[in-house]
Amino acid sequence: MSNGFRARHLSIVGMGLMGGSLALALRDHVEHITGIDQSESARSYALDHGFVDYATDDLFAGVNHADAVILATPVGVIVEMLKMRIGSYLRSNTLLVDIGSTKQDIVDAMANLPIGVNAIGGHPMTGKENGGIGESDAALYRNRPFVLCPSRRTTPAARLRAISLVETLGALPIEMDAERHDQIVAGISHLPYLLSTTLVATIANQASNDTAYWELAAGGFRDTSRLAASDVTMMGDILSTNTKAVATLLAQFRMQLAMLETMLIAGDDKRLTESLQPIRRARKEWAENYEQRR
Amino acid sequence: MSNGFRARHLSIVGMGLMGGSLALALRDHVEHITGIDQSESARSYALDHGFVDYATDDLFAGVNHADAVILATPVGVIVEMLKMRIGSYLRSNTLLVDIGSTKQDIVDAMANLPIGVNAIGGHPMTGKENGGIGESDAALYRNRPFVLCPSRRTTPAARLRAISLVETLGALPIEMDAERHDQIVAGISHLPYLLSTTLVATIANQASNDTAYWELAAGGFRDTSRLAASDVTMMGDILSTNTKAVATLLAQFRMQLAMLETMLIAGDDKRLTESLQPIRRARKEWAENYEQRR
Repeated sequence: MSNGFRARHLSIVGMGLMGGSLALALRDHVEHITGIDQSESARSYALDHGFVDYATDDLFAGVNHADAVILATPVGVIVEMLKMRIGSYLRSNTLLVDIGSTKQDIVDAMANLPIGVNAIGGHPMTGKENGGIGESDAALYRNRPFVLCPSRRTTPAARLRAISLVETLGALPIEMDAERHDQIVAGISHLPYLLSTTLVATIANQASNDTAYWELAAGGFRDTSRLAASDVTMMGDILSTNTKAVATLLAQFRMQLAMLETMLIAGDDKRLTESLQPIRRARKEWAENYEQRR
Repeated sequence: MSNGFRARHLSIVGMGLMGGSLALALRDHVEHITGIDQSESARSYALDHGFVDYATDDLFAGVNHADAVILATPVGVIVEMLKMRIGSYLRSNTLLVDIGSTKQDIVDAMANLPIGVNAIGGHPMTGKENGGIGESDAALYRNRPFVLCPSRRTTPAARLRAISLVETLGALPIEMDAERHDQIVAGISHLPYLLSTTLVATIANQASNDTAYWELAAGGFRDTSRLAASDVTMMGDILSTNTKAVATLLAQFRMQLAMLETMLIAGDDKRLTESLQPIRRARKEWAENYEQRR
């Protein structure tokens, strides 16, 4: 598109699935791309496959020529970079976007960046079961919501440039404040992960006395337990930056569970079925909309 | 196979996905099949597609010539049939197998059948997201575990005939008592359903104030919430015949959840990550074995 995102020099910090896919999707919209990663093999892969023009493990060297920087590392590393040094490395008027999975801590850290760094928080609602730069896909962001959360360093021009970046990826920009974002992902992502993990822990505990639990488990267990196979370090990182929202959701979850369990134990089949019906409808309606949007 | 299941006249009560698929899979191993269902359209479908030779809504007329009967209705209906009339309709030496999702209530009811009715409980660990006879598939049972639970009416000959029935379906017979079966399915099937349903109820509750919950929900939510779309009447039926085992598992689930939450709130990232790691490994190991077996 004619008014799409443009940059002279884009630097992407973190050459995993998300960073690699950003490089592929933005390749034709920027003059140069630098990829920054601690891993030699990720850098080689990015260079060898033409994802980037330059690759380095030196954050300063990697970002100090850029006029747009995307931080595509785990949340904890993003917060560290924002707090420690990165602001002083950047040229004035550089757009700084992160794509971490929680936003409040990051947007708070952005507030203390030097004036002149135009920083905005981002969270694309996409991913794959397996990570790594080898899984990169230029279409990873396409038709997926991409949340943008303003910080004290988001100028009106930075906001528009970030929206055009998101649109260039083919993603759907959704603007909201960081607190609301973190509450929502606590519900749709962190709570499901904890439930999935706790389910597996419960079954593993039972299966230690009877391996038939594992033998008989089938499709329903597979779906409900899938998130328990997520990267543990990444999830720990996410949870620890969103503890309050997660704990609030867990309390509400327990309340809902107790209501269903009460009807179950009371043998109140009629009320139980009546309670399950609208939940089923809500899930079916969501799934239909979700598949249509994809 | 030469020593496979044989019957002169097989009657299948319940012409849904499970019953229809049984008819397809056993078609060439029996001389006649009668399908019994209340629904005129299910009976027509079964006749028109050659699943069965005869179809009726009259239980007595449908089973009184049979030398093998499979009950493929919801659990509650199976228990009703066993308690009410079916024993007196059956010829001596008829094999009676059910495929209900919980087994204790059914096996208890089988104990009171007339001597001469050779009854055994069954539960094939298979299914499809959408039910109905139109979804029938001769391969539905293939390579899937098929639990057999003895009743007081399971003669040694009946047991062998049931095993050969299961093997003729291409399924894997696993024998265990009804109590153990019901505990296991409480863990691998009923607990996941309740968690999935309660997750959707929690999110629906949040979304009533902020529809962005639905907009941003993606693949993780989709997998974890899938079981919430299950047939409500069937699940209510299942839960109400397995209340004790489900309540026991829920108590264990809450304990496991409380342990993870304690580490989370305490900010003990190291212990949290260490606890998540073996859970992740257990899930990955199970999934690899599961996919291999399929």
